[in-house]
Amino acid sequence: MSDAASTMAGMKRAFKDHRPTHFLMETSADGRVATIRLNRPERKNPLTFESYAELRDLFRDLVYASDIRAIVLTGAGGNFSSGGDVFEIIEPLTRMTMPDLIAFTRMTGDLVKAMRRCPQPIIAAVDGVCAGAGAILAMASDLRYATPEAKTAFLFTRVGLAGADMGACGILPRIIGQGRAAELLYTGRAMTAAEGQAWGFYNALHAAPELEAKAGDLARSLADGPWFAHGMTKTMLNQEWAMGLEEMIEAEAQAQAICMATQDFRRAFEAFAAKVKPVFEGN
Amino acid sequence: MSDAASTMAGMKRAFKDHRPTHFLMETSADGRVATIRLNRPERKNPLTFESYAELRDLFRDLVYASDIRAIVLTGAGGNFSSGGDVFEIIEPLTRMTMPDLIAFTRMTGDLVKAMRRCPQPIIAAVDGVCAGAGAILAMASDLRYATPEAKTAFLFTRVGLAGADMGACGILPRIIGQGRAAELLYTGRAMTAAEGQAWGFYNALHAAPELEAKAGDLARSLADGPWFAHGMTKTMLNQEWAMGLEEMIEAEAQAQAICMATQDFRRAFEAFAAKVKPVFEGN
Amino acid sequence: MSDAASTMAGMKRAFKDHRPTHFLMETSADGRVATIRLNRPERKNPLTFESYAELRDLFRDLVYASDIRAIVLTGAGGNFSSGGDVFEIIEPLTRMTMPDLIAFTRMTGDLVKAMRRCPQPIIAAVDGVCAGAGAILAMASDLRYATPEAKTAFLFTRVGLAGADMGACGILPRIIGQGRAAELLYTGRAMTAAEGQAWGFYNALHAAPELEAKAGDLARSLADGPWFAHGMTKTMLNQEWAMGLEEMIEAEAQAQAICMATQDFRRAFEAFAAKVKPVFEGN
Repeated sequence: MSDAASTMAGMKRAFKDHRPTHFLMETSADGRVATIRLNRPERKNPLTFESYAELRDLFRDLVYASDIRAIVLTGAGGNFSSGGDVFEIIEPLTRMTMPDLIAFTRMTGDLVKAMRRCPQPIIAAVDGVCAGAGAILAMASDLRYATPEAKTAFLFTRVGLAGADMGACGILPRIIGQGRAAELLYTGRAMTAAEGQAWGFYNALHAAPELEAKAGDLARSLADGPWFAHGMTKTMLNQEWAMGLEEMIEAEAQAQAICMATQDFRRAFEAFAAKVKPVFEGN
Repeated sequence: MSDAASTMAGMKRAFKDHRPTHFLMETSADGRVATIRLNRPERKNPLTFESYAELRDLFRDLVYASDIRAIVLTGAGGNFSSGGDVFEIIEPLTRMTMPDLIAFTRMTGDLVKAMRRCPQPIIAAVDGVCAGAGAILAMASDLRYATPEAKTAFLFTRVGLAGADMGACGILPRIIGQGRAAELLYTGRAMTAAEGQAWGFYNALHAAPELEAKAGDLARSLADGPWFAHGMTKTMLNQEWAMGLEEMIEAEAQAQAICMATQDFRRAFEAFAAKVKPVFEGN
Repeated sequence: MSDAASTMAGMKRAFKDHRPTHFLMETSADGRVATIRLNRPERKNPLTFESYAELRDLFRDLVYASDIRAIVLTGAGGNFSSGGDVFEIIEPLTRMTMPDLIAFTRMTGDLVKAMRRCPQPIIAAVDGVCAGAGAILAMASDLRYATPEAKTAFLFTRVGLAGADMGACGILPRIIGQGRAAELLYTGRAMTAAEGQAWGFYNALHAAPELEAKAGDLARSLADGPWFAHGMTKTMLNQEWAMGLEEMIEAEAQAQAICMATQDFRRAFEAFAAKVKPVFEGN
């Protein structure tokens, strides 16, 4: 290891031994692809105060994880997630003071921020119920696969709340358009899987038995790709959200120049010239 | 009425007795749903200087109206609106000085601002001709239903003007995408109802005899829902238009904490626990 | 010519005699419609350092060209463009210093800026391969027609780079939605023509033998329309990218008041009243 690499190693963290307590995490043999599984199938994998916080911490740490390159986020037992549990989360919230309420909504928002800020592309694999905060987790992912049985509902209105939860009023319109997002957020009705695909929320639909394998294949292909550059793609997809045209073009001139200064760029060229598959090293 | 409620009452206005002179307004028996009807069917319900101003004033006052919770905006005689009348509006404009021109374009823009700023969700029910400023009124609504016969044309270019009218160059791309919006705004061609639905401009199509009932049903379900929270959903759908990701997530943490501090949130929980329909009070 | 017109003439440039060396430019008999043709069919019309720079200069000069009113951008030999040539562009870039890299990415970005900043609507007519910087040129156009055989790939990831190239992470999501754009930019896969139309990237598909004629018809109809106003539509479509709702409505009040102060507005009214086709003069 070079001196510089040794210096940088101090910033990094290995994730292959990470053991979350409120959800499952499985890692591929080479450590490149992690599957995060919400796993309380008897309740349709709800979120709790503890699982929110642990997910937030995990995604925050992924910024420094050099071994994991792509994430699959999924559920168990034929459902993705029913969101915040009515008795474990909603009820306590109805009795909280304002400082506690804003601490809670900021924590859930921090989970979305952390999902967007880590460099690894996140692929949501959605079957069955995908509701409330569960729908937000799918929305906050980079790419989304679903089964034809997926029912995706931003149902905050059903518990007397606004559709403005964890960024939904800003993010959902960018994915499916302002009019469709408004309908889902005002009414709380479920978006069918077919609507989700037609509207660009889901990148593809796959039958339930194939869903995880398909998501895994996509994650694998991204993990074997130029992962430093993928992280820059993700950064810029986030960064340009509210930039003017001039500013986004200058921002990308800088971002792409950084990628052109990596050896992965040269490796890709040499592999192309030699007609072989490139092997990327993330530097 | 509590002291606080009594104090607030001074800010509020009742709309059930409102009598506009340039369009019709019908209110449901309980006063919660208002139907605004452009009603000059022999001319396809054009807008005039007077009706623009009266619509602007009505939507501005709705900010303080605590009795009306959802709006249906529609036309008469099988058409929605033909927009600014060529002889009553266009011709006088071609002879105006710049201060008068900008006063006019600001007034029409103020109508869109007022439609976006009032807390009540606005549902456009569109049949037949929906052109020029008529198309803008549909665009500025929150949700849109149409008949298969609806023809929606942003036809400003046909009178020698830019597509940049009342916010169309910014709002329409968010609803149907930049490329489709550009086509409609450059060419002025009519978007068919089928296109409007496929592109996300119309939330659903309904046969003409059912259009108003369907729009009314949707308005009713929103009016019976958590209307304070709906108002916050609308505010945030507007507010996050040009925010960065971080800013929109913090903005929603605050907005949703406000909704969680309402008794409507508790009422929804209790109704859920009791398996009954919640009754919201907007506080 | 009036004194004022004579004064302005010094700012303007005529394009009918322009002779680019790295692509073809054909102008209609009346000089109103220019067709820019990437023309190196044996290599699928790649871009080179020289053609990038010459395209940038051409689009920059179009700001001052009063004779050309609409642009068709197309390829030759059944393809649109394969983008930056791997051996002529990619290989030299892999050996450049950072100042040269950023100079290159800024130059390519300047081409997109120039395409967006010239007042003439640009219609991309896409057949066959439309890849890398070629896909960016289509994306940066105002309107897009394609053949069913068009394969559009933002394949920067295939050469080890980010999808953040020439504005793609900001512009593409506005055209086809954030989720679909993310898929194309992360994976580099080709978007089929059918997907391109369903997602709003392509405004229409036409069989290859008709593609250029259809693009030419659209360019002609725009060129015969109110071209000063079209330029304002284009300006505002660019300008409102990251504005808040209030700001965009005020911006359009000003922009449209400018158009209402032109004689073209009066000409359109008079033609309407006389039931004849208006003849616009751009003033």
